Amino acid sequence: MELYRQVAIEVKRLIEQGALRAGERVPSVRKLSRQQKVSVSTVLQAYLLLENGGLIEARPQSGYYVRTRARALPPEPVMSSPSGTATSVEKGELIVDLFKAETTPGTVRLGCAYTGPSLFPVAGLNRAMVRVMKQLGDDANSYELPPGNLNLRRQIARRSLELGRSLDPNGIVITVGGMEALNLCLRAVARAGDTVAIESPTYFGILQVLESMGMKALEIPTHPREGISLDALAVAVRKNKIRAVISMTNGHNPLGSYMPDEKKKQLVALLARVDVPLIEDDVYGDLYFGERRPRTAWSYDRKGLVLLCSSFSKSLSPGYRVGWTVPGPRFQARVENLKFMSTIATATLPQAAVAEFLSDGGYERHLRRIRRTLATQVELLTDGIQKHFPAGTRVTRPQGGFVVWVEMPRALDAFELRKRALKEKISIAPGPIFSAKEKYRNFIRLNCGLPWTSEVERAVITIGQLARDMAKK
Amino acid sequence: MELYRQVAIEVKRLIEQGALRAGERVPSVRKLSRQQKVSVSTVLQAYLLLENGGLIEARPQSGYYVRTRARALPPEPVMSSPSGTATSVEKGELIVDLFKAETTPGTVRLGCAYTGPSLFPVAGLNRAMVRVMKQLGDDANSYELPPGNLNLRRQIARRSLELGRSLDPNGIVITVGGMEALNLCLRAVARAGDTVAIESPTYFGILQVLESMGMKALEIPTHPREGISLDALAVAVRKNKIRAVISMTNGHNPLGSYMPDEKKKQLVALLARVDVPLIEDDVYGDLYFGERRPRTAWSYDRKGLVLLCSSFSKSLSPGYRVGWTVPGPRFQARVENLKFMSTIATATLPQAAVAEFLSDGGYERHLRRIRRTLATQVELLTDGIQKHFPAGTRVTRPQGGFVVWVEMPRALDAFELRKRALKEKISIAPGPIFSAKEKYRNFIRLNCGLPWTSEVERAVITIGQLARDMAKK
Repeated sequence: MELYRQVAIEVKRLIEQGALRAGERVPSVRKLSRQQKVSVSTVLQAYLLLENGGLIEARPQSGYYVRTRARALPPEPVMSSPSGTATSVEKGELIVDLFKAETTPGTVRLGCAYTGPSLFPVAGLNRAMVRVMKQLGDDANSYELPPGNLNLRRQIARRSLELGRSLDPNGIVITVGGMEALNLCLRAVARAGDTVAIESPTYFGILQVLESMGMKALEIPTHPREGISLDALAVAVRKNKIRAVISMTNGHNPLGSYMPDEKKKQLVALLARVDVPLIEDDVYGDLYFGERRPRTAWSYDRKGLVLLCSSFSKSLSPGYRVGWTVPGPRFQARVENLKFMSTIATATLPQAAVAEFLSDGGYERHLRRIRRTLATQVELLTDGIQKHFPAGTRVTRPQGGFVVWVEMPRALDAFELRKRALKEKISIAPGPIFSAKEKYRNFIRLNCGLPWTSEVERAVITIGQLARDMAKK
Repeated sequence: MELYRQVAIEVKRLIEQGALRAGERVPSVRKLSRQQKVSVSTVLQAYLLLENGGLIEARPQSGYYVRTRARALPPEPVMSSPSGTATSVEKGELIVDLFKAETTPGTVRLGCAYTGPSLFPVAGLNRAMVRVMKQLGDDANSYELPPGNLNLRRQIARRSLELGRSLDPNGIVITVGGMEALNLCLRAVARAGDTVAIESPTYFGILQVLESMGMKALEIPTHPREGISLDALAVAVRKNKIRAVISMTNGHNPLGSYMPDEKKKQLVALLARVDVPLIEDDVYGDLYFGERRPRTAWSYDRKGLVLLCSSFSKSLSPGYRVGWTVPGPRFQARVENLKFMSTIATATLPQAAVAEFLSDGGYERHLRRIRRTLATQVELLTDGIQKHFPAGTRVTRPQGGFVVWVEMPRALDAFELRKRALKEKISIAPGPIFSAKEKYRNFIRLNCGLPWTSEVERAVITIGQLARDMAKK
């Protein structure tokens, strides 16, 4: 680990253990540099990290102070408790509406999980695109048939130790974003009428895929920081004929949870005992805020039961539509076959350009930067909720990604709040679209992907005001 | 019409009406120039067109002569006669095998419908890509949500009079190639277990889509030049609960048929009476060899029952994966919704680049050139079959596109022929993959998309030799 990170961890510990309290001044840069026998610039780097992480703040001409927020986060929602029966899914229109509103010019986009384009290295990707057009010549125009661009599969494999296990480039299938990966994997293991266990709440895209396939959803209680309840899942797989489980182990949407690695191991063991496939959605995996990337459940799999799905849409480029899956030897032929039947191939140039971008190391630099930015944006938006939303509001504490899940007082209706917010040109995502059973009527999901501008701040204040008005009645 | 085309049509008429017979010399360039009061270079252009179209040939130091072939085409296959019962489809592996063999380096690719990359304007597309990257800025990286790039939809609408009816840009949905368009439309009108009427033979991709959806296929007799039999279809829709019909009205694959416009009108009327949707696959529509583009069945639709699917994959760029569909008001919301659930969006830059390429007129120029080239390649390959294949071989007379459908003597097994051809590093497509019931065991489809090189010529000679050997036994 880099030296400055070690220093930062030491100071963080002092804050967490109460040695340094909110509002207190942390040791001066010079003093800490002498104490720890490190350079001044190392300490400065450490303080910058803590500042980005929201633990301390700089005050002009005065030094660094422990932020108030460090001890006064809003309360979290508790573990969800969906009903234990499977249900068919019907929400298509709701979600299309969400996106239509979101893309209306002038709307503050807090509804979809959307990052401001300024977070992405567009110029670098453009340069990569120009380079690959030259390299490929006529091949730029030809099909890149499944499993997809070999150079890209190699680049993904090179990064795979981070996932907890090394990966063979030949085991990867490139897809049209994470959504196609999810579709293909689900179709490889289940069919119309089958029941699939999902987290509750869950990403509405997962519900849509189940809907479009005519599959039933069984919602499993899920903890806002530690993910799906293994106890509840164990009961569910005993009681029901479950054909597959879908879990966003890293960077759950909307909860922001990253399942502890040990729990992932238990999840894989549980499903191995009953021979049920796990579709692991890791699209937010690279956007963790902690010290290191959490492993994947896939890395514990020894039976070929875990189908890993990921994508560059959340971390590098939504518009390139480049995702990937590792279906494992049991399902790879079927997934490639279904890929061919669905879209034949992923567009040739975007695949090649992502590979090119990854190969020159730009991706790791970019990820370090975007993770810091997103962590700060999540914190600022959380602060805004705490200040402006009705008393009793609870907010998740995302360990990565860029959404927060907000539980408001019970009487408050999220659809009504959305309607009122849209009148003010602010889009928010109502809780029920994250549940097959339309639970979470008093929840909303807010997007923290936008740079924290006064426009975004005003939008948060406005939503809070609208919610407080509604809560009064 | 350009002058040289008028001149060419005049000369063509002389040949067709028998005024000029095979082997006879056509008027010299100078003489015709005087007779028709046009320049020498106009006549030269006209003769070049006729030469490319295969009607005349140049003999050194002697002038132009009517080609023998003009009167001696090989016989055509007759109307197909599939059995009248619906069947579930299982051919995934067969088709994956076809593509795997095809992309093995050193293989002569006569199996898949594949055009040599030299036929496509790669440099022009690259320039369009660079321009749109500059224009779009950060938006190059953002989702282009359904219905897709507005500029591209406008460009498609501008060309729509050619389809027989003007088109509203808002009625178009951009897809990941024609294959996704087909998937979305089929899923919008039918579900697992339903029966769908298809042409026999038909493009194996259509069979795969039915397979992947768990739908049943009912094969309808189809004429090699005029398309699906309306009499047979009328009986089929009376006798069976048919949920949809899929027809490649223009540029049928593998037959190369273009259904006469009047017949398209009758097809639409027939299906309107029984309220059955028609999915019209027009991906080869722009690659007609005749004087003008045939209309679409869609242009006759007044009930919103025709879902038109098309793509730039066959005419401009396979690798860009840009297709489109016009599902009509009855099905558009459902199609957009399914698109979102399948791949969220089509890649942003390829859509924008195709729109840019179309907007400067390059596409029409390109199409004129590629149509001439493909017509010549089809003819040369047909000649090769006539010379080298066993007696009794029949070949379709494609009116566009770039495949021929070859019927060999009854005893000949296409899979065995394929196996032997692969040993010689030549890939061919065996007939049974074009039928849900695995009919057409003595048929193969050959690709005419490759430039006619000595390597391709040798490959045709080799297949003919192998087939003759097999026919002897």
